[in-house]
Amino acid sequence: MTTRVNRQWLLVSRPEGRLQPSNFQWAETPVPDLQEGQVLVRTLQLSLDPTNRGWTNATATYLPPIPLGEVMRGIGLGVVEESRHPGFRVGQYVQGLTNWQLYLVSDGRGLAAFDPTPGLPMDAYLGLFGHIGATAYFGLVEVGQAKAGETLAVSGAAGAVGSLVGQIGKIIGCRVVGIAGGPAKCKWLVEELGFDAAIDYKREPVQPRLRVLCRPGIDVAFENVGGDILDAVLANINLRARVVLCGMISQYNEAVPPPGPRYLGNLLVKRARIEGFIVTDYMSRYAEAFAKLGEWYAAGRLKYRADVVEGLEQAPAALNKLFDGTNTGKLIVRVS
Amino acid sequence: MTTRVNRQWLLVSRPEGRLQPSNFQWAETPVPDLQEGQVLVRTLQLSLDPTNRGWTNATATYLPPIPLGEVMRGIGLGVVEESRHPGFRVGQYVQGLTNWQLYLVSDGRGLAAFDPTPGLPMDAYLGLFGHIGATAYFGLVEVGQAKAGETLAVSGAAGAVGSLVGQIGKIIGCRVVGIAGGPAKCKWLVEELGFDAAIDYKREPVQPRLRVLCRPGIDVAFENVGGDILDAVLANINLRARVVLCGMISQYNEAVPPPGPRYLGNLLVKRARIEGFIVTDYMSRYAEAFAKLGEWYAAGRLKYRADVVEGLEQAPAALNKLFDGTNTGKLIVRVS
Repeated sequence: MTTRVNRQWLLVSRPEGRLQPSNFQWAETPVPDLQEGQVLVRTLQLSLDPTNRGWTNATATYLPPIPLGEVMRGIGLGVVEESRHPGFRVGQYVQGLTNWQLYLVSDGRGLAAFDPTPGLPMDAYLGLFGHIGATAYFGLVEVGQAKAGETLAVSGAAGAVGSLVGQIGKIIGCRVVGIAGGPAKCKWLVEELGFDAAIDYKREPVQPRLRVLCRPGIDVAFENVGGDILDAVLANINLRARVVLCGMISQYNEAVPPPGPRYLGNLLVKRARIEGFIVTDYMSRYAEAFAKLGEWYAAGRLKYRADVVEGLEQAPAALNKLFDGTNTGKLIVRVS
Repeated sequence: MTTRVNRQWLLVSRPEGRLQPSNFQWAETPVPDLQEGQVLVRTLQLSLDPTNRGWTNATATYLPPIPLGEVMRGIGLGVVEESRHPGFRVGQYVQGLTNWQLYLVSDGRGLAAFDPTPGLPMDAYLGLFGHIGATAYFGLVEVGQAKAGETLAVSGAAGAVGSLVGQIGKIIGCRVVGIAGGPAKCKWLVEELGFDAAIDYKREPVQPRLRVLCRPGIDVAFENVGGDILDAVLANINLRARVVLCGMISQYNEAVPPPGPRYLGNLLVKRARIEGFIVTDYMSRYAEAFAKLGEWYAAGRLKYRADVVEGLEQAPAALNKLFDGTNTGKLIVRVS
C-alpha cells in the first residue's frame, strides 16, 4: 500500500481580531497506519461555522481551546477509506469533527455514520441534514417554542442557520421577518424563501423597522448576531417573548466582549427570556429533526443554499467570509 | 358624620434622574361620599418599592405611566372604614394599590381582604405575606427552579426581596452567596440570616469574589440590580444556569438605559437563560406562597426586617433610600 500523505491546517498562533494567514500553518505528513479500533476517514467537505472562530481563542467556550500546533478543529463530512473499527465499514459516509485535514485517523468517537439518500447532493448533508439543520430545528421549536400565529424575527437571516429558521417558521405558521445585510440577501429571503419581510441592516435602521414590521411585538427572536441587532430586537419584544441565543457573530472577533444590549430591562417588563443553546446537546435527537426536515425538503417547502469554496487550502481565508457578510447560505469547503 | 380630609401625594412632574421634592405636591381634600359598590379604606402602611420609580416615567412599564396631577401609585395595607361594597366589611384589612394617600375610595378592584394572624405585627404583611414574599418565593422556586445542592447568588441581598430569597434558598438546600453594599448588611446576611457568604460590592471586586465563592459556578442568580453586578454574575454562571431578572435598580434613575452586560455570550456557551418576571402574574397563587412562608416563619427559619419611616409626608424622600443603598429590609411608610 502506498503511504497516504495528509494535508492539514495547523493552528499555530491565537488570532487577535480577524483570523490572519499567519495564525495557520500548512502541513503535509504521512498518515500513520491504523491501530486496532481505529478508522481512517477521507474528508470530502468541511463546514465553516462562526463558532470555529471562538475555538481558536485561548479561553474555553463550550469546547476547550484548540491547542497551538494542532490541527484546526472543524465539522466535516467524509468517507471511510480503511477501518479496523467494528462500527465503521469501508465506503461508509460519516459526519463529525474531521477537522481541517484531508485524512482523519479516529477511534470513532464523535463520528456519525449515515447512508446518503440517492439523488441528494452531498452538500445537502452539511447544509441541511447535519448540525445546521438540527440547530435551526431544535433552536426554533424546542428553545424558542415557536407557534402558529406568532411573529418570528431572525437575524443573520441569509446565513446557513438563519435561512432555514425563517423557512421553518413559515411552515409552522409564523409571520417571519429576517434581518440581513444587503439587497440581494433580502430579495432572496422574501422572493425565494418566502419570508414575509426582510430588513437590510446596512441601509435601514433596524429598531424602527422591526417596530413597524413586527406589531404588536416579536414573540420569538432567533439571534445569530448579537450587539446592536440584539438590542433592536429586545426593544421590540412582545409579552413572554423567547429570544433564542444561537450565536453572536458580531462579537467573535473582539478580544474583550463589547458592552451588551441596553434594552435588557425589557425582559423584565415583558416577562421574556433570553436562552442560549448548543446544538450538540440535542445530538441524540437529530434523527427526529432530519425526518421533519427531509419531509419538508422533499415537498419543496424548504430550500438550502450551499456556498462552496474549492480546496482545503482556501479554508482560513474562507472562514472570514462569515464575518465579512460576503457569504449567503451554508459555507462549505470542498476538500476531495 | 364629620367630613374626612384626605392627605395625598400627587405626581406633578416627571423626574429626571433621582426623584426630587418638586416632582410631588401635597394635597388635602375632602373625601367624597361613597357611591353604591364602593369601599373606603384608610391606609395604615405604604410599601416603597424600586418599581415605583419606573411608574413615574412617561413611558409605560408593565403598568401605564401615572398621569401627571394624579395620586402617586403605590402598594399599601389598610383597614376598611366604610363600605357600600358587598365584598368588604368595616374593620376588615386589605392589601393592594392604596396609592400614596391616607384614604382610598375604591370599587374594590385590585384590593385583597385578609384576616391578620393574632400576634403577627402589621409590617409582616408588607414584609413577608404580600407581594414581597410572593416575589421571593415564585421568583426563586418557579422562575429560577432552584434545587437542593445548587449554588444561588442574590444581588440586592439585604433588600426586602433579596433577604428572603437567600433564606428560602438555604431552606431549599442551596449554597447561598449574597451581594450587598457595606459591612453591616453583609454581617446581617451571614450572621443573622444564615447566608453562606456575602460580598460587599463597595469594597470587594464582585466578579473574582463570585468566582472564588461560587465554584464551579452559579446555578441560579436572583438579580435585583443589573449593570456591573449582572455582568459579574454572567461571567460566573454554571452550565444551564437560570438568571431570574427581578429588578435592575441600578438603572431606574437613568433616562436612557446604559449599555448592558458584556458577558451575555456566556448564556450561549453555558446554555443558560435570563428570564424576567413580574410577581402579579402569580397573584392567583399567592396563597400557596404564603402557606410556605408562614410555615417557615413560624418555625423560626425565615426572618424579615422592616425599615419603617414615620408619616406619609416622608414618602418621596424615603423612596430614594432604595437607590442610595441606605435601606435594609422592607422599606415601609407608616401612614396612620
